[in-house]
Amino acid sequence: MKSELERSSGKTQRGRRLMDALEPGTAERVTSSLADLDPDLARLVTDYAFADVLGRPGLGLKTREMLTVAALTALGNAPSQLEFHMRGALNVGVSPAELLEIVIQMAIYAGVPACMNGLTAYRAALAAFEGSDAR
Amino acid sequence: MKSELERSSGKTQRGRRLMDALEPGTAERVTSSLADLDPDLARLVTDYAFADVLGRPGLGLKTREMLTVAALTALGNAPSQLEFHMRGALNVGVSPAELLEIVIQMAIYAGVPACMNGLTAYRAALAAFEGSDAR
Amino acid sequence: MKSELERSSGKTQRGRRLMDALEPGTAERVTSSLADLDPDLARLVTDYAFADVLGRPGLGLKTREMLTVAALTALGNAPSQLEFHMRGALNVGVSPAELLEIVIQMAIYAGVPACMNGLTAYRAALAAFEGSDAR
Amino acid sequence: MKSELERSSGKTQRGRRLMDALEPGTAERVTSSLADLDPDLARLVTDYAFADVLGRPGLGLKTREMLTVAALTALGNAPSQLEFHMRGALNVGVSPAELLEIVIQMAIYAGVPACMNGLTAYRAALAAFEGSDAR
Amino acid sequence: MKSELERSSGKTQRGRRLMDALEPGTAERVTSSLADLDPDLARLVTDYAFADVLGRPGLGLKTREMLTVAALTALGNAPSQLEFHMRGALNVGVSPAELLEIVIQMAIYAGVPACMNGLTAYRAALAAFEGSDAR
Amino acid sequence: MKSELERSSGKTQRGRRLMDALEPGTAERVTSSLADLDPDLARLVTDYAFADVLGRPGLGLKTREMLTVAALTALGNAPSQLEFHMRGALNVGVSPAELLEIVIQMAIYAGVPACMNGLTAYRAALAAFEGSDAR
Repeated sequence: MKSELERSSGKTQRGRRLMDALEPGTAERVTSSLADLDPDLARLVTDYAFADVLGRPGLGLKTREMLTVAALTALGNAPSQLEFHMRGALNVGVSPAELLEIVIQMAIYAGVPACMNGLTAYRAALAAFEGSDAR
Repeated sequence: MKSELERSSGKTQRGRRLMDALEPGTAERVTSSLADLDPDLARLVTDYAFADVLGRPGLGLKTREMLTVAALTALGNAPSQLEFHMRGALNVGVSPAELLEIVIQMAIYAGVPACMNGLTAYRAALAAFEGSDAR
Repeated sequence: MKSELERSSGKTQRGRRLMDALEPGTAERVTSSLADLDPDLARLVTDYAFADVLGRPGLGLKTREMLTVAALTALGNAPSQLEFHMRGALNVGVSPAELLEIVIQMAIYAGVPACMNGLTAYRAALAAFEGSDAR
Repeated sequence: MKSELERSSGKTQRGRRLMDALEPGTAERVTSSLADLDPDLARLVTDYAFADVLGRPGLGLKTREMLTVAALTALGNAPSQLEFHMRGALNVGVSPAELLEIVIQMAIYAGVPACMNGLTAYRAALAAFEGSDAR
Repeated sequence: MKSELERSSGKTQRGRRLMDALEPGTAERVTSSLADLDPDLARLVTDYAFADVLGRPGLGLKTREMLTVAALTALGNAPSQLEFHMRGALNVGVSPAELLEIVIQMAIYAGVPACMNGLTAYRAALAAFEGSDAR
Repeated sequence: MKSELERSSGKTQRGRRLMDALEPGTAERVTSSLADLDPDLARLVTDYAFADVLGRPGLGLKTREMLTVAALTALGNAPSQLEFHMRGALNVGVSPAELLEIVIQMAIYAGVPACMNGLTAYRAALAAFEGSDAR
């Protein structure tokens, strides 16, 4: 098992860098939290979700975060992760105005309540982003 | 009521142009189909969904179609509309490779079955797009 | 087990009458189909869903069918059951115009694609209702 | 842009009156909150959601609020908006007993957990309604 | 009505025993809470959900709780009920490691955010289980 | 990139064996279909979904298929994949009676329409299983 961990370490590092690009410290926070539960669980996030999927070269990270914000606003099942990806979107160059457009557009595809929930997450993400920016 | 129709005709025209940008003939097809049901229903699509929301200046139509494809792939509740917006995305300049990336990314946020359904829609949209392209 | 069946027969009969009020022949069709799978399964529909819940006195059947159509249009996970309840709604006195209003309203709460799927079911239910009416 | 605002002011006023019928002060609270984000966003709620859809003449506001409560209980994605529409339903004449029936009925169409979440919203809405009534 | 209550009392008792098997005191807590709202509502939970469905002989309670945890993790619409059924699963013999596996598996079928929400519920359920165990 | 493919070939083989355990020929069918779209896409299914998640040692494949059937019945967004996993469940030792119990249980957690859709998939999966058995 250990040798497989070593083999994947390049992939793990690529995944961790993407996570930290969204918000500094994310890789350490998430992986240490997941490693408490299971030694391989963190790698499902770092290696699979981030390195193997979000790290694919076909789309830039800014575009990918916009897509994730659209999907999580529409699905409405993960408000804290929506807020995280909104902060991530802002951190990788999505403007507050663009982020707001995404949320408004989802009113058409997922309904006005989903849009209103998205606006709540947007306000919180923007406040956190501007707070961190001010530091 | 008639005067209100006239007042909104600029907005209706903007909405119809956006619909036809996604796929020529869409405005006529959708609005005549909806007008059979109710005289105001077509305007909810042309004026509200398209002119007032998708026509907002903050994001380009290519980006908006990518977001719609992400949301409809994640939600999984409207396969024929997903396929329509995939064709629309291709028609406004999203490349097949970019479209495929969106669908793959949704495996992370909505699960592998949602992604597989998205791939089915992608194959159909791409075949239709390439068919229409060949004409 | 047989004695429990007898005890519940009054409830089963009330459930079956409600099913047939939505569309004549429904009780026989559904219960014989479910009885093939499991002897108690049909009673979950007749006794629980229909007699114990839809048969509660607090709301009339017409109102209940309108609520069911709203919910199934919003959820979007059961198109053939949505169409059945639309026919049922028409059969218990919901007008075509009222039914259409429900579907349109859902555009606000579940999005335009859910509404469009509802319109597809509405057209089919109305055609079936008018066809059966003409006989 | 300003002239379009003027043209739509009749529609905006109709939408605002509907919002306040659900709960006095809603129009001001919602539109001022949304206007902070974007000047046109409030009108998507007042003009589109309320005036153009909920204000359509085919169904009364009491019936429409019952349908909205059914849909939001079934969808389960917007608990605070469900609670708002439950208060709105009570304010436009839906009785507490009728409201409870809607929530119970949703156990059949969306499952017992969705119904239980609806009961939580129902208790909160009823407490707020009775509290405001006592004033 | 009273005689029907008597007739169903055997069923009600079977349902209550199942509820208490998941967590001692559940039957009393849930039924008294629901009886405040409506005299028949508690029986929809005890008689239908528990006695008639979860009490069917074809699967053991341990397996059923695992299935419920899978479904509620995937649906993501009822976090407190997910946490309750996770405690119930632990109380009827599902190991913490098995429970964790279920949540991880749902990343494939419902997406990583649904899995992450499930992990939050898992931590809370495990803490409560170990706390009650320590008493 | 080729060396990474080689490194992961053990994992890929484990994933493919699991896929074929569900239904002989699945690995070849799915991977060749996905490879047409993108060279790495097949490995997201073989390596991630199957080897890294479903292949984890904490639960047996029979239990995992039961959980997947529960989740897909509840979600209702992927009927053909539900039917595939029902066939897979039958192929790895879930009895038809157990499979039916899972579907019935989901009526409680996701509603009766989700259960009815599950019964449709169950009938089709059972017919295919018995057909293949007869050969």
